[in-house]
Amino acid sequence: MIRLSQLFVRTLRDDPADAEVPSHRLLVRAGYIRRVAPGGYSWLPLGWKVLRNVERIVRQEMDAMGAQEVHFPALLPRDVYELTNRWTEYGDNLFRLVDRRGADYLLGPTHEEMFTLLVKDLYSSYKDLPVSLYQIQTKYRDEARPRAGLLRGREFLMKDSYSFDLDDAGLQLSYDTHRATYQRIFSRLGLPYVIVKAMSGAMGGSMSEEFLAPIDIGEDTFVRCTSCDYAANTEAVTTALPVISARDTPAPKNVPSPECPTIATLVALFNKQYPRADRQWTAADTLKNVVIMLRHADGRNEPLVIGVPGDREVDMKRVAAQVSPAEVEPFDDASFALHPVLVRGYIGPQSLGLTSASGIRYLLDPRVVIGSEWVTGANQKDVHVAHLVHGRDFTADGTIEAAEILSGDPCPLCSSPLEIARGIEIGHVFQLGRKYAEILGLSVLDKNGKPAVVTMGSYGIGVSRAVASIAEVFHDDLGLRWPRAVAPADVHVVIAGKGNDGTSDFAESLSVQLESSGLEVLLDDRSGVSPGVKFKDAELLGMPIIVIVGKGLAAGSVEVRDRLRNTITEVPSESVAAHIVTLARSDD
Amino acid sequence: MIRLSQLFVRTLRDDPADAEVPSHRLLVRAGYIRRVAPGGYSWLPLGWKVLRNVERIVRQEMDAMGAQEVHFPALLPRDVYELTNRWTEYGDNLFRLVDRRGADYLLGPTHEEMFTLLVKDLYSSYKDLPVSLYQIQTKYRDEARPRAGLLRGREFLMKDSYSFDLDDAGLQLSYDTHRATYQRIFSRLGLPYVIVKAMSGAMGGSMSEEFLAPIDIGEDTFVRCTSCDYAANTEAVTTALPVISARDTPAPKNVPSPECPTIATLVALFNKQYPRADRQWTAADTLKNVVIMLRHADGRNEPLVIGVPGDREVDMKRVAAQVSPAEVEPFDDASFALHPVLVRGYIGPQSLGLTSASGIRYLLDPRVVIGSEWVTGANQKDVHVAHLVHGRDFTADGTIEAAEILSGDPCPLCSSPLEIARGIEIGHVFQLGRKYAEILGLSVLDKNGKPAVVTMGSYGIGVSRAVASIAEVFHDDLGLRWPRAVAPADVHVVIAGKGNDGTSDFAESLSVQLESSGLEVLLDDRSGVSPGVKFKDAELLGMPIIVIVGKGLAAGSVEVRDRLRNTITEVPSESVAAHIVTLARSDD
Repeated sequence: MIRLSQLFVRTLRDDPADAEVPSHRLLVRAGYIRRVAPGGYSWLPLGWKVLRNVERIVRQEMDAMGAQEVHFPALLPRDVYELTNRWTEYGDNLFRLVDRRGADYLLGPTHEEMFTLLVKDLYSSYKDLPVSLYQIQTKYRDEARPRAGLLRGREFLMKDSYSFDLDDAGLQLSYDTHRATYQRIFSRLGLPYVIVKAMSGAMGGSMSEEFLAPIDIGEDTFVRCTSCDYAANTEAVTTALPVISARDTPAPKNVPSPECPTIATLVALFNKQYPRADRQWTAADTLKNVVIMLRHADGRNEPLVIGVPGDREVDMKRVAAQVSPAEVEPFDDASFALHPVLVRGYIGPQSLGLTSASGIRYLLDPRVVIGSEWVTGANQKDVHVAHLVHGRDFTADGTIEAAEILSGDPCPLCSSPLEIARGIEIGHVFQLGRKYAEILGLSVLDKNGKPAVVTMGSYGIGVSRAVASIAEVFHDDLGLRWPRAVAPADVHVVIAGKGNDGTSDFAESLSVQLESSGLEVLLDDRSGVSPGVKFKDAELLGMPIIVIVGKGLAAGSVEVRDRLRNTITEVPSESVAAHIVTLARSDD
Repeated sequence: MIRLSQLFVRTLRDDPADAEVPSHRLLVRAGYIRRVAPGGYSWLPLGWKVLRNVERIVRQEMDAMGAQEVHFPALLPRDVYELTNRWTEYGDNLFRLVDRRGADYLLGPTHEEMFTLLVKDLYSSYKDLPVSLYQIQTKYRDEARPRAGLLRGREFLMKDSYSFDLDDAGLQLSYDTHRATYQRIFSRLGLPYVIVKAMSGAMGGSMSEEFLAPIDIGEDTFVRCTSCDYAANTEAVTTALPVISARDTPAPKNVPSPECPTIATLVALFNKQYPRADRQWTAADTLKNVVIMLRHADGRNEPLVIGVPGDREVDMKRVAAQVSPAEVEPFDDASFALHPVLVRGYIGPQSLGLTSASGIRYLLDPRVVIGSEWVTGANQKDVHVAHLVHGRDFTADGTIEAAEILSGDPCPLCSSPLEIARGIEIGHVFQLGRKYAEILGLSVLDKNGKPAVVTMGSYGIGVSRAVASIAEVFHDDLGLRWPRAVAPADVHVVIAGKGNDGTSDFAESLSVQLESSGLEVLLDDRSGVSPGVKFKDAELLGMPIIVIVGKGLAAGSVEVRDRLRNTITEVPSESVAAHIVTLARSDD
């Protein structure tokens, strides 16, 4: 039994100034966590209980699928991460340090290298495989913008696991097993999720899916087909290519276009100065060329121009995902000064490309198909060009999924409209393949005694992030509303009477009775605290069932509130214990 | 049930090259841990189970005493540690790093500051106290000499707790409660311990005791009185002062002493050149002055001369403990060159002291009492001086417990002989007092509404070190021998027959039966591995009970080995399950 009179907790009436999202606000106000540094939080007793409940569920399911738990240091020597180039590729996201002897170390952001080497250390035969290993361990990433409390921290608890198989079929099986385990874990946690196709990012590898909890404040944007099963992170959406009808396109024609700072003014000017016979010009006829600076992991900078249809913005998160591990930076005045071929506001593809005189890399969104015709910049001030045809009048160095995805865009599988939503990444499953095994020399002898490179999968669940995600899903204006599987206690019993009216004795004995039925009880036995304050605290703290032992007791009744279902029931005091046990069990 | 055929483990026949102590050697050979970096280890599944068993016992007992669990980040901002000066005082032992914005961080070696600030954040009244908080968390120390595997690592798991009280009586009660809890914890872990008086080191504070597991390879040396209860780390032993009889001492007299590199040659020379009338000169008549360089935390160097009776060595660990947080470094040739007053081999107290011309600090071991008479250096080459009396002919800047403690030295409490032993520090309890609360402003309003500075205790148990300590105590030449409370499994069942002789079926069903009785079973179901190898592995892995299902089964008998008691029993196969359950329960 937890007694609120002794519990190390204080609730706050006001939101913390730096809290942007409900989970952060409520977890701080309810005394679950406290901020120590940007992206660094301390766990108070109630918060720690929730975290450990989540951890326990993750561990049980990982053990049940046959994965074996190990544990690596967080402080890791540089050399291994040099071999895979991640020491450099991680760029500023890596916490690096030097020990007293001058040796370089890092704080592990993820442990692919270490797991690969450990399996190499122990295993040597195909008979040893498959094996899946996991750890639940503190990770470190020097995020550029730690935010949203536990949702994007710099020190966080993660379950990471790795599968090791002899062949692709084995990897697929390990992947499917992990995927099914993740479905069970999130179901037990009560977390709604969508499984979406994902980018592989800096990890390398091929098949990759994310588990997203669909929540509006989430950092990830994903699409879902309104008709088929297709779902993908917008970073990973593949574009359904437009079909263009064959048409005789006139030769390119330069058109003066002074004072056309936007696509809208350009379209208006063209409709006035150079009207089409068949229809009005629209933004979809224009090709917008956006220049960015790529900062490569080795410190090198490279200008990159991306062309997208003028009716769409460039989605910088999508771009960032494609160019990773390089980072995207704005193309500033100094950079324009260094590259006079890039005429700001009038950039066109005719002067671009690695093989052009400028040597500037030029990539096109896949919507700009071969044969399509565009109005775009003429690479001189106050001039645009019309009838510029991709493949006839210009080429690019490749394609890049860069244009923003819009609600209603066609599904790449079935062409039905896509819908867009936001979510929090709560899990990631990933066919890593042989990249790490090749670099680090992990092979086993196969049935014929020949060395075979092992193929790997990598799988992650953000344990501390799951706590915040659950709080995002399960809260209301009054406070938190924990699902029973992770709640710090099952029942919050409030003594809401005076000392001598029997409420205290009744609540104490009810609490003992509930505990002996296997429920965990948080008892508000504080003296000198008004019932109003106790009610507010109970709502804020968020145990699934609140029991108010107050004035009604004299008339033989106790109030039972179901925080999740939002119901209030007056229950006869003699049957209230049984009522609560039944109610709690109904969540199991 | 853990199946050895699938368990991620490989035993090694050979000792690892870098293993100095049995626990390190055996934990690596048995596949419990692997080295990743100096002082950094990975835990394999069996090792992780032991660690979690230890952690569970620690947590249960901490909860039972009413301490509440919280959890802090390991990555901590510099500013808080600046306030207490520990950013500097920790010197090279602290891992420091800089984040992408240029802010300074450290990896927490201990969390006094954070706990103090957390209590300050939440609590404000005497009614809130007492409170005891703890965490079980990964700590980092950049040890100069990481060694002995888990015994002295740079990344390790620790339980640290802190008590907060209004007054000294409250602190004493919290301290006593922690002390009793530690006794229960170590008893449950099966770890023998001695509670010894300890130095407080860099922590500040007053009363402090260590729990030492008496093990020969331990880094700590402690004394125990052969008669009374007195026990202390040698660093903390207080010297029983010798009694000197009043005697007319002649005036100091210089005696030429060429080629006297040692105390022994000096004594021999004196007995020859300047014999005493009453008895021979002995080493105990000489005053040995040893010069060291103190390296203060702020980088400043300071020479320090320490005088001890010539029949004892200076114990540098004792000295280091007294001068901490300054570090002791050798006084090298360059330093002698800078201080010509220090004539190597002929240093005497006449030229020393902060108020002397040299200004060099001079401290005396307490055995050099006022009125005692010495032969010592005359501060010129090839000359010593006799009849130099402390208090008459020289003074010092203070005393320092510096001389080695010898077996048979008198107990400071009862004068009976002390005995000396070595041990591993497995726990530390500590009355920290008001130091941190004062610096960080932790006070509460007392009954009269006046602010009162809170007094604190600090208490630690090395959780990963406890695993190694248990392995040090419980092993033999064949391998590990885990006490049941922490063993990865209760019973190791070995299938030692051929597949078709019934041994496999019997062992499988026995294992199921044992598991249903609540025992955890490790089943060696490997095929293609000889019984001899299986026996050796079972002995090395160290489960408390080994069951061999082999040739004897045909005659109705199974072999049961008790690893801890070192017994082997043939048990009828039909009653073996019951026999094992009884045997296992007898450890509880």
